[in-house]
Amino acid sequence: MAEEVILLDFWSSPFGMRVRIALAEKGVEYEEREENLNNKSPLLLKMNPVHKQIPVLIHNGRPVCESMIIVQYIDDVWNDRAPLLPSDPYQRADARFWADYVDKKIYNIGKLVWISEGAVQKAAKRELLGCFKLLEKELGDKCFFGGDRLNIVDVALVPFYSWFYALEACGNFSIVAECPHLVAWAKRCMERPSVSKSLPDQYKVYTHLLELRREHVARLGAQLQAQQAQ
Amino acid sequence: MAEEVILLDFWSSPFGMRVRIALAEKGVEYEEREENLNNKSPLLLKMNPVHKQIPVLIHNGRPVCESMIIVQYIDDVWNDRAPLLPSDPYQRADARFWADYVDKKIYNIGKLVWISEGAVQKAAKRELLGCFKLLEKELGDKCFFGGDRLNIVDVALVPFYSWFYALEACGNFSIVAECPHLVAWAKRCMERPSVSKSLPDQYKVYTHLLELRREHVARLGAQLQAQQAQ
Repeated sequence: MAEEVILLDFWSSPFGMRVRIALAEKGVEYEEREENLNNKSPLLLKMNPVHKQIPVLIHNGRPVCESMIIVQYIDDVWNDRAPLLPSDPYQRADARFWADYVDKKIYNIGKLVWISEGAVQKAAKRELLGCFKLLEKELGDKCFFGGDRLNIVDVALVPFYSWFYALEACGNFSIVAECPHLVAWAKRCMERPSVSKSLPDQYKVYTHLLELRREHVARLGAQLQAQQAQ
Repeated sequence: MAEEVILLDFWSSPFGMRVRIALAEKGVEYEEREENLNNKSPLLLKMNPVHKQIPVLIHNGRPVCESMIIVQYIDDVWNDRAPLLPSDPYQRADARFWADYVDKKIYNIGKLVWISEGAVQKAAKRELLGCFKLLEKELGDKCFFGGDRLNIVDVALVPFYSWFYALEACGNFSIVAECPHLVAWAKRCMERPSVSKSLPDQYKVYTHLLELRREHVARLGAQLQAQQAQ
């Protein structure tokens, strides 16, 4: 059967990067459609009416939403190559646990590091480094979280490597000094074309996040003015 | 092999209820150990050092944490009966999507309804009913989210039926008047011993949540006093 695989995506989204990596690991060809997140396409709103967010994988006309669900779907459908989840139930649960940990923590805490300042930023930096150190411990001596190949934990986490320059520049700290093993792991991941082709340049991400921060500050200022005018 | 299955749990936890329902659906015998959440056992802290939360399923000495991951683990291990996830990859992704939707929304919004008041509570009520209506639409004419049997979406959602009296009493609204199909679905679920034996009495939950609310208000008061004394 001819497969039609379309990915509704946005270049700087770590969630979109997860799907790009999973598809590349499986060798699935697809059409990537870049969304304008300030003016979402009718197709995106139709395909993900609940969350109205990218990424959405449209496989033979049917949408799959939410990055970690998409990654598991990709693993289920193209199950004859590059498994992203272990076959043993206990190991599967363990991989899901750490992928879920990454999903619940890194985006929100990381965003606080690049968008805030002062005490909030300081606390976020400490918390983020705590998460990274815990993940380093979980990685241990393994090459990847999946052992000698990528698994769902690697796929969940490595997109945030594209944030590292922005985190360090905005937060004025060094991730490699605190978590050398995690940075070494990320660099090993980047040696794989599935990862290096899916992650944007860190400096490009940095300038984009600075722009988002400026917009955020401007919105806060406008809200404050509106409140004072009341 | 003799199975040793232990569940670290707390009676009023909707997350614990999910695991109880899944184990009951599979007919798995287990030992339930009630935790004191104000003085967690060394076993809980050892078995779930990351989140330090119940439920934890300890299967032959190895812990599985996070309720939805435990439910999937149960489905993976006891895979010869009562499947909780569809076998078709697309339907699996769809079931995971709605289970994830429940997981991300209902607890947090529901808690705002029973713990807050005024404008915050009013907004939370509106949002919660919106979620329930969306879930009603997804249920459609089906007996259960899983069709003619429970699936992971039913298991994720039905524990919150034990909150309904508390939500209605604290929020001064009627869920059945707004979402009659959802209440009918919950009652159908309750006809199954796997569900009715796993959910506590709604009035007992109500009195417990009132107690938690009192403690919450007392903590807020103490914080305020401490701030004013500074």
